Amino acid sequence: MARYKVTIEYDGTGLVGWQRQKTGASVQQTIEEGIFAYCGEDIRIQGAGRTDAGVHALAQVASFDLQEEHDPATVMNAVNHHMRPARVVILDCVRVTDEFNARFSAHGRHYVYRICNRHSRLALNMGRAWHIRQELDTDAMQEAANLLIGNHDFSSFRAVACQAKSPIKTLDQLEIVRNGVDISIYVSAPSFLHNQVRAMVGTLSLVGKGQWNNQDVLDALAAKDRQKAGPNAPAHGLYLAKVDYPC
Amino acid sequence: MARYKVTIEYDGTGLVGWQRQKTGASVQQTIEEGIFAYCGEDIRIQGAGRTDAGVHALAQVASFDLQEEHDPATVMNAVNHHMRPARVVILDCVRVTDEFNARFSAHGRHYVYRICNRHSRLALNMGRAWHIRQELDTDAMQEAANLLIGNHDFSSFRAVACQAKSPIKTLDQLEIVRNGVDISIYVSAPSFLHNQVRAMVGTLSLVGKGQWNNQDVLDALAAKDRQKAGPNAPAHGLYLAKVDYPC
Repeated sequence: MARYKVTIEYDGTGLVGWQRQKTGASVQQTIEEGIFAYCGEDIRIQGAGRTDAGVHALAQVASFDLQEEHDPATVMNAVNHHMRPARVVILDCVRVTDEFNARFSAHGRHYVYRICNRHSRLALNMGRAWHIRQELDTDAMQEAANLLIGNHDFSSFRAVACQAKSPIKTLDQLEIVRNGVDISIYVSAPSFLHNQVRAMVGTLSLVGKGQWNNQDVLDALAAKDRQKAGPNAPAHGLYLAKVDYPC
Repeated sequence: MARYKVTIEYDGTGLVGWQRQKTGASVQQTIEEGIFAYCGEDIRIQGAGRTDAGVHALAQVASFDLQEEHDPATVMNAVNHHMRPARVVILDCVRVTDEFNARFSAHGRHYVYRICNRHSRLALNMGRAWHIRQELDTDAMQEAANLLIGNHDFSSFRAVACQAKSPIKTLDQLEIVRNGVDISIYVSAPSFLHNQVRAMVGTLSLVGKGQWNNQDVLDALAAKDRQKAGPNAPAHGLYLAKVDYPC
């Protein structure tokens, strides 16, 4: 038996998300079927982040075992071939020890959330960024974002379906960078609650529009109630950008 | 009669290019039909650059006349509404004088050509960048690119179908910027021959792969023969980025 770690890019458009669902093609299923087509092994892979339907990945990470020993480059090229024309592609494949688990070994996760802040609807970035017409005050958003950094009970930013044991998480980075009409929000933490990034971005959008102030954000955080924070930002603006491992 | 100048973004995927064709939807036709749906005027618009099938635009410019006077913001919003779901969108609309012509008043055109230089096929950038597996030597490409800057007879980089009166053009910028696996080539000139950017990028790709050296590029330029330069780079990596006007 041999364990492999793969780094994966995908366009989440039209996919039901990372996890297998009965309602359509998932990233996990696409890769598992690619592996089966390559070597005939019907396996289940473990992803570092279970991204929602429509969420993209620049560098998701997954791990899996194959009964036979294969050249990692061959695994990558063959599975990429068999997954065509799905917009899911393995960027890197390496052999790892049996201690490695893409989900449980990860000690840092990095997301980027993209907003296109302009009047006209999107053409090139359709499905790739959240379109917000009203001009956002990104300085105000950054001030409010700073209140969320650190160790908090993030129950107000947690999906009802979230399976995490504890709502207490440490947020390392929540940085808002504007480049003309393009706004990128960089978010890093050891791990996240389900929908946490989207709930935080949705809340910050209210601040950017001037509807909420810093105290509203503090009150939402203190309430520990999903109903008290802002709405989820749409999935299609979110990218899983990087996953950190000890080695 | 009132003349309007519009700035347009489009995803060229699946479109037959700027100009009307019998073979499918063009950008020009999409906008003209949007204008007709809005105000019932069946007009022809003039574009600054007649981009090929698959070429994208960040900021194409076009001009047209309407019999009636309209609020420019209303024209933009209404035409954008009627063009849905086409991935063509007006970013800006202003009234201009009758001297203005999007094509003939332009005194500078800026293109960006995007290459993704990595082993795995593209997922998020499929149809948005040229995928080249072999590692490109971008320093060598820049050295060769410098030989093309200035005033030259660009016959070797000109499509057979090109309708320009003279093959002599002045190339102001041909700059290659690598950011990891992403390579952007910035190209500026008062005007270009048909396929000139794609022929230059295709030629530079041969240099990047080590198949051509600087002398080969000089020989190709001197030959004044399209057969002597490299192949056209694919259309889907090319973006019309900006058009300059005197005012």
